[in-house]
Amino acid sequence: MGLIVQKFGGTSVGSAEKILHVANRVIEEKKKGNDVVVVVSAMGKSTDLLVNLARDITKSPSQREMDMLLSTGEQVTISLLTMALTEKGYDAISYTGWQAGIQTERVHGNARITDIKTDKIDQQLKEGKIIVVAGFQGMSSDSEITTLGRGGSDTTAVALAAALNAEKCDIYTDVPGVFTTDPRVVKSARKLDAISYDEMLELANLGAGVLHPRAVEFAKNYEIPLEVRSSMESVPGTRIEEAASMEENLIVRGIAFEDQITRVTITGLTTGLTTLSTIFTTLAKRSINVDIIIQSATSENHTSISFSVKTDDLEKTVEVLEDYKDALKFKKIETENKLAKVSIVGSGMVSNPGVAAEMFAVLARKNIQVKMVSTSEIKVSTVIDQEDMVKAVEALHDAFDLAKQSSAVL
Amino acid sequence: MGLIVQKFGGTSVGSAEKILHVANRVIEEKKKGNDVVVVVSAMGKSTDLLVNLARDITKSPSQREMDMLLSTGEQVTISLLTMALTEKGYDAISYTGWQAGIQTERVHGNARITDIKTDKIDQQLKEGKIIVVAGFQGMSSDSEITTLGRGGSDTTAVALAAALNAEKCDIYTDVPGVFTTDPRVVKSARKLDAISYDEMLELANLGAGVLHPRAVEFAKNYEIPLEVRSSMESVPGTRIEEAASMEENLIVRGIAFEDQITRVTITGLTTGLTTLSTIFTTLAKRSINVDIIIQSATSENHTSISFSVKTDDLEKTVEVLEDYKDALKFKKIETENKLAKVSIVGSGMVSNPGVAAEMFAVLARKNIQVKMVSTSEIKVSTVIDQEDMVKAVEALHDAFDLAKQSSAVL
Repeated sequence: MGLIVQKFGGTSVGSAEKILHVANRVIEEKKKGNDVVVVVSAMGKSTDLLVNLARDITKSPSQREMDMLLSTGEQVTISLLTMALTEKGYDAISYTGWQAGIQTERVHGNARITDIKTDKIDQQLKEGKIIVVAGFQGMSSDSEITTLGRGGSDTTAVALAAALNAEKCDIYTDVPGVFTTDPRVVKSARKLDAISYDEMLELANLGAGVLHPRAVEFAKNYEIPLEVRSSMESVPGTRIEEAASMEENLIVRGIAFEDQITRVTITGLTTGLTTLSTIFTTLAKRSINVDIIIQSATSENHTSISFSVKTDDLEKTVEVLEDYKDALKFKKIETENKLAKVSIVGSGMVSNPGVAAEMFAVLARKNIQVKMVSTSEIKVSTVIDQEDMVKAVEALHDAFDLAKQSSAVL
Repeated sequence: MGLIVQKFGGTSVGSAEKILHVANRVIEEKKKGNDVVVVVSAMGKSTDLLVNLARDITKSPSQREMDMLLSTGEQVTISLLTMALTEKGYDAISYTGWQAGIQTERVHGNARITDIKTDKIDQQLKEGKIIVVAGFQGMSSDSEITTLGRGGSDTTAVALAAALNAEKCDIYTDVPGVFTTDPRVVKSARKLDAISYDEMLELANLGAGVLHPRAVEFAKNYEIPLEVRSSMESVPGTRIEEAASMEENLIVRGIAFEDQITRVTITGLTTGLTTLSTIFTTLAKRSINVDIIIQSATSENHTSISFSVKTDDLEKTVEVLEDYKDALKFKKIETENKLAKVSIVGSGMVSNPGVAAEMFAVLARKNIQVKMVSTSEIKVSTVIDQEDMVKAVEALHDAFDLAKQSSAVL
């Protein structure tokens, strides 16, 4: 029997009742003879409540004080879960991020973990205790409380699993696992038994939402087997592991999609070595996340650039670009709203050059016009009209046989 | 200009609006050219909310996990107050108990402060910052989060004032200072300009409630001048300091009172060396707070003992005593409810032997029967019928001239 790290997110620990339920899931694992380290997030909406309190005080709180404020959320959960475990007759102890030895950069709001000193946890595990650790938080070298930013608790869990040489890391969530596509939209969507780190990374980045990309990358680097599973029912979820043990015959593993996309096109740009970097550095500085970028030369001295942004960011994007109009010497900015991004993801694509072509063919058969394309080794993304999005996802889900249970032995 | 420690309790920081108001009080002090360290409690009812959450999980939470849970309360306040100070243009930084170097015993729920490592605060003060410290909490030598028990934030403030050689420690509260008696009951009650540590100790122990006795004792030992003052209005409060600078002519400084007292009498007790210790050790173990104790020998081999307890504890008290009936070999237990305790307090009594006699005379003139008496160097307590309590307090307040403003130069 080995060591298991379990992570429970905010909705799983949203009330005293839910915390008592989580305690049962922890005890199940302990009863199998495993050592258990549990990582938890702040209770349900408690982070929002804290953020609102800060907003009532100031529009621009310092990141340091926000870390001080928000880190209390997980601290509440660890104490309550530990009480629940003790109440049910199990020996348990809670640790904040700093007590658990989670060391981070000297950065507030979005720190990366630099090291984990596991002496304390090791000692308590030896004594047979269940360890409950606050996710999302750590301590910098100068004893400052830091937080890890979005998906921080996932990252804490995976990092602890790596530092403690855990057998696996189970990410409990409110869905039963990773699906071929969003089951709320496509009825035939199927829960995957397994998926590779890289595929999960693409899906996570594409907004599949069940697992933070940072945590997946960490797991990949340290080869920590992950499992995404339901905190509600005790059934197997989706394993995330190296490609070797995968359903080899599935070329496309999943389909991600996202609406509220806008395409921005800058025409009549004077070609210059620094043009691209000027545009995108400026946008990045204003925290505008640019996704697909396409450059096309229209003449020897002029070029046009298209890129996609979230529609919410459009106003800010145009503002920033207009500010730089003189420096960039462009002719005009064109924008097109109400677009969506649909992406197919699968490790099998690497050795199957025709996959992108097949995707375009499927969309063409449905009279769906592709407006932008972007590809990686294991992904093809297309930007299409938002009104065609669901139709496109359904057609692709069918065409790539995703509803069928794979016959491969896993 | 020197260093001032300010402490604001839970009701003073009960909302974002109140925290912004507290920031103004802090800034007032800073503007005078002083260095300022602020100690705050958890926001208003937040501790109750956390306690209720724990109760939903277990009836008997471990003290360690309660400390983990409750210490988040002050951590929320320090971050919000620091944001408020920054918003108003002042450089400030928040510290939890452990970050502020507050070291305690390895005890949960009621730890005593053993040392304060002030390096960090010293450094930040040098940089001109306002320091905001979480009250009520510290860290033990094995890096466990501990809490200081009731009145903990007062104790934090006074201990920090001692460790930092502060000029004074201001305790901000929702009343304007310490009164001769409770102004809600006696209209002519007057706010005192000054009071000695010992007098304050007696009044604090008697339930005057504005300041925790532990903090007063600490202040006395380290000779830290305290001031109890209103967080609402910017007027002088009550100074607590050595007797030398006191209104020497006031023999009685204040009158404390408390209802819901019960007298318990055990009659026919067999006299024995261990009888007293057995009774009161047993009661203490069950957390029953015994106040006045009177022993009277009725015959050579028998004795009777009377003591007062809070009426709420009566049932438990009788239960405990009945359990020991065989061991203690007493005849019976008599109880009398609906009693009250009225006490006069004043350093001047030490050199005025007639004060107790005068008190009894005042009560006798009002036809009030005294049922128990207890005295210390600077206090006389009497137990009387509850229905006579207010009449007694008013009569004593008049008789000892407490309503009159002292003419002494302070």
